[in-house]
Order: sequence, then structure tokens, then C-alpha cells
Amino acid sequence: MKAIHNLLAALALGIAALPAAAETCDSNEAFTLVLHGGFLDYEEEVGPPHRALFRKLLKSGREQLASGGSALDIVVDSIAALEDSGILDAGKGSIVNTAGFTETDASLMDGRSGRSGAVAAMQRLKNPIKASRLVMDKTEHVLFAGTNGEQTLAGLGAELVKDPASYFQKYTPQPTDEPTKPKHGTVGAAALDRCGNLAAGTSTGGWRDKLPGRVGDSPIIGAGTYADNRRCAVSGTGVGEEYIRHSVAYAIGALMEYQGLSLAAAVDRVIDETLKPGDGGVIAMDPQGRIAMRYNTPSMLRGAADSSGRFEVKIWD
Amino acid sequence: MKAIHNLLAALALGIAALPAAAETCDSNEAFTLVLHGGFLDYEEEVGPPHRALFRKLLKSGREQLASGGSALDIVVDSIAALEDSGILDAGKGSIVNTAGFTETDASLMDGRSGRSGAVAAMQRLKNPIKASRLVMDKTEHVLFAGTNGEQTLAGLGAELVKDPASYFQKYTPQPTDEPTKPKHGTVGAAALDRCGNLAAGTSTGGWRDKLPGRVGDSPIIGAGTYADNRRCAVSGTGVGEEYIRHSVAYAIGALMEYQGLSLAAAVDRVIDETLKPGDGGVIAMDPQGRIAMRYNTPSMLRGAADSSGRFEVKIWD
Repeated sequence: MKAIHNLLAALALGIAALPAAAETCDSNEAFTLVLHGGFLDYEEEVGPPHRALFRKLLKSGREQLASGGSALDIVVDSIAALEDSGILDAGKGSIVNTAGFTETDASLMDGRSGRSGAVAAMQRLKNPIKASRLVMDKTEHVLFAGTNGEQTLAGLGAELVKDPASYFQKYTPQPTDEPTKPKHGTVGAAALDRCGNLAAGTSTGGWRDKLPGRVGDSPIIGAGTYADNRRCAVSGTGVGEEYIRHSVAYAIGALMEYQGLSLAAAVDRVIDETLKPGDGGVIAMDPQGRIAMRYNTPSMLRGAADSSGRFEVKIWD
Repeated sequence: MKAIHNLLAALALGIAALPAAAETCDSNEAFTLVLHGGFLDYEEEVGPPHRALFRKLLKSGREQLASGGSALDIVVDSIAALEDSGILDAGKGSIVNTAGFTETDASLMDGRSGRSGAVAAMQRLKNPIKASRLVMDKTEHVLFAGTNGEQTLAGLGAELVKDPASYFQKYTPQPTDEPTKPKHGTVGAAALDRCGNLAAGTSTGGWRDKLPGRVGDSPIIGAGTYADNRRCAVSGTGVGEEYIRHSVAYAIGALMEYQGLSLAAAVDRVIDETLKPGDGGVIAMDPQGRIAMRYNTPSMLRGAADSSGRFEVKIWD
């Protein structure tokens, strides 16, 4: 129905607006969506707005998946909404670096094809996850970085904000801040659609104490994001440097394929043995839509919805 | 002897010049150094200068390793010399992107500690591999990108070239060019020292047809570079996008640890099955110093020297 609706809308607009690849995903019944919003370190931030946002996005994503939407589309839509919310450390809500300005990172991977797109150290992209989709769809490349990369992506249609200093959240240090702790949380999503395709994506403004130009794991395929229909879909949040050194997202898939571990066991191994306490967490999904949401930080904002009726949002244990 | 020599030299210069961590590596007899210079696609470039450069660096590296030098130092020194040569696609010899200017990428990983440093989309760094060492030694971070990252690293002591347009090689298209083929080759090194430590590094100017801001696998730990004393040391060269999508360097270590494959078998699996013909090659080394140099391109400039007397430089089969 949705494809027909899109087609009719396209015909009304003229043939040039025909959808390039209208696709229905209904060969399977099962679908799953899982989201994370990283580690929330302040009591006052942990509350109704975050839970309400996650419930809204899970409901919307569940509807899209039920009606045959693609995992890739729902991952992008969900993360773009988290970026636009301004209450998490991604997109509009991104914190500033030690020099007082915002640099964002994001990535996206399609588990069906292995196609990937990512952006790093971007100062003016409104939606880093949408720019990642542009990289995937419109270039031969996977990753663009810095102001030159941003200009290239603007030329391909990425939306830039006019006044980054007013658009992005200004972080104001509080007297109670512990400087070694992260401020706010990276966001991410993973989904299984009714075609049996997996997708995953991640977006962040990085850490409060990051130096200008620092890039974490969020835009690194295999570190912060990974999706392969035969293995799993993963999005991470935490001390990005550790996720890069240990190729955390890829490692979960390698443990499943090469050691025969279940998704849950592979995630446990990485969170409990590869990483150190306090390093972070992951959301992950196997090809059957079974999920794992593990972390070794005090909290992780997370939520899941699936075709069996599961619907949950949690922050603490 | 070298440590004593350094100490005496430091004393002569005053106490402030004392080496921070003078370390001798002589607990083992075995050491190995392996280098690559990527895919050379022009007959006229394949010849005496490249072979002579590799022989010189292998001799020098062998001497350093024999006298207890660290794998990390020899990897950095070897790659810095390849960058300065101007005859390979890294450092001074880096090609320009589609907009006509140079952007370089590099990374470095210490197999003993997992510490890593990397730089991406840099326009003025004289030696991207030395800047990667600075990231590793002087920051909490792993990866810096773009002009902001470059300024941060300049503040930490990284050397910038004053006039990038004259310092870096200007690529001049030839009538015979096939535009889909890479121009010149990424460089890389892996070493095992007499402490039993592995290290690996990679440096590149990227591909001839890359858009401004594009970043390949060379600065991505787990994709283009990986080192873990318990597994292997790897440096790759080729279609960086494929190396990122498949976490190629990390995957070799995962196949060794999780599937029990030898280094050679793990490298064969990745070159022959994970990657497609024409994607590229890797140099790799296991904890005993056994090496693999495989590629599925028509050539790969490569060379190896070890404590058993092996000494070879090859370009074609």
C-alpha cells in the first residue's frame, strides 16, 4: 500500500519524482527496532523527556516496519529524530569540544549489501546521519571528514546549518561536574525489517573533553557501527578510543561467526572481557531479530520494539 | 649499548634531555621487518628507485632491530622515510584529490599495549606517521581529522609544511591513464622486535579519483592497520572502502584467534574470499615473526628482512 501511495504521489508530481527503488518488505512477519541514547550521567536529565522521545520513535518505527519499511530507512529516520531532539549528544544537542565549538560524527551500514556511509569532524551538518546516507547512496566512498568533506557533501545535497554557534547546544559546565565523565550520550539504532535485512547507525557530538578535530568510534564502520545480514547489527556508545582499538562492533559479528557464539554471548564477551568497566555499551541484533542491550556504565538510555509485542524503554537496570 | 650511548649523549646535553624511556629489546633473538609500497600501476615507475629505497630501509631497519630497537620506532622511521621519498603515494609523494590538493591519512598501532594514533584528511602535515605517533603519545585520543585536527596536532609539535602546493607532488594526468585505476601506492610497515613486541603502521595520499574530504582505510585502526602481540601485525593497501567495510586488518587477527588459522591461512582467506580481485593487498606478521605478503592486484611493492637472514624486495610475482 505504501509503495502504491508513493507511486501515486510521484505521478501527481510528475514523472521526474518517481521513487527510484520503491520496495516493499513483507516476506517475513518478524521485525525489530532497538535504539540507544548513550550514558546519561545526570539525575535531572534522566526522565520524562527522554523516555517519551524513545516511546514515540519506537511506536513510529514499529509502524513503519510493520507496513514493510526498510531497516535502513527506519534507522536513518530514528537517528535523525534523535539528532533533532536537542536533548541528546547528537545533531542539534551535540556538545562542544574544548575549543567551544561542535564537531559531529556519524555512520550507517546496510547489512544486505555492506554498503556504508560515514561523516567525521563535521561543523555544520544539520543531520550527520542523513549525510551518512548521502555518502552511501551518492558516492563511491565510505567516509568523509572535516570542512573539505562537509563542502563535498553540501554539494551533494547535505543540509548545513547557517549559524552553528546558535543551532548547536552550548554546553555550560556545572560546579558539580566531574571532568573525567562524559556529558550526554551518543545515539544509535539497529533494525531488522520484513525482508530480513539488518541495518545499524550511530551519531554523536563526541565527548565533553575532546580536543578539536578528535574523531571517536561513531563514524568508524567496525568500531561504533556494523551490520551484516549473516551476522548482526550493532551500534555502540562509550569511550570511542577503546571501541576503535578493539573493533568492537565488528568483533561481535566475528565472535558469532567464528566462535559460534549467540548474539547475547558475543555481546557479553565484548562488554565484560574486551572492554573495561565504565567504557560503555552496545545495542545489537541478530538475523532473527533477537536483541542484546548491554553496558558497563552506570546507565544506558535504550529501548526496543518488535513484531512479537515487545515494547520497552529503560535507562537504569 | 645503544641505550648507554643515548644515556651518555643525554648527560652531555644536560639532565633535561634524558630519554624518557630508554629501553633495550634483546630478550629474544628473532626479529622481522616487512614493508609495502602499494600497487604500482605504471611500468616506468616500477624499477630501480623503488627497489633501492626498499633495500636501504630494510637494511637500516634490520640493524636497528638487531641492536634492540623497538618495533614501534622502526615502523615509524621506515614509514617516515617512505613519506619523504616523494616516489610513493604518501607524505611528500601524495597525489592530489579531484579538487587538486593533497589530503593525507595515516595510522600506527602498538601491539604490546593496543595504543594507537591516526590522522585523516590532513593538508599540511609533513609526516602523517610522525603525527600519528604524537596522537598516540601525547593525547587520550586515537584519531584526528581535518584542519581542526591538524591545528591541534601542530600545537602538540607536529611539523607542518609551509607551502603544501609546492611541497606535495602534483599529479599530472597522462594520456594513457585509466581513470578507474589507482595512481601510486599506499605505504606501510610491520615489525617484530627482540622484546617480542609487534607494531604496524600505514600512510597514504589516497586515490587519484577521491573527492575532497574522503578518508580511506589507512587511518582506520582495524581496517588498514592493526597490531596485537597475541595475534598479528597488519598493514593494508588497496580500495580503502572495501577494507573499511570488512574490517580487513582486524579480521585477520580474528580468524587467527577465533578459527585457529595460521597467519598465512588467515591472510589467504581475506585476500581470496573476503575481498574481490583487484581490491588490494596486505603485509602481515605473526608473533613469531612469520610473514605473509599477499595481494590480488597486478603488483605490490614489498620487502622483508629478518634475523634468519631473509632479505628480499619484490614488485611483481
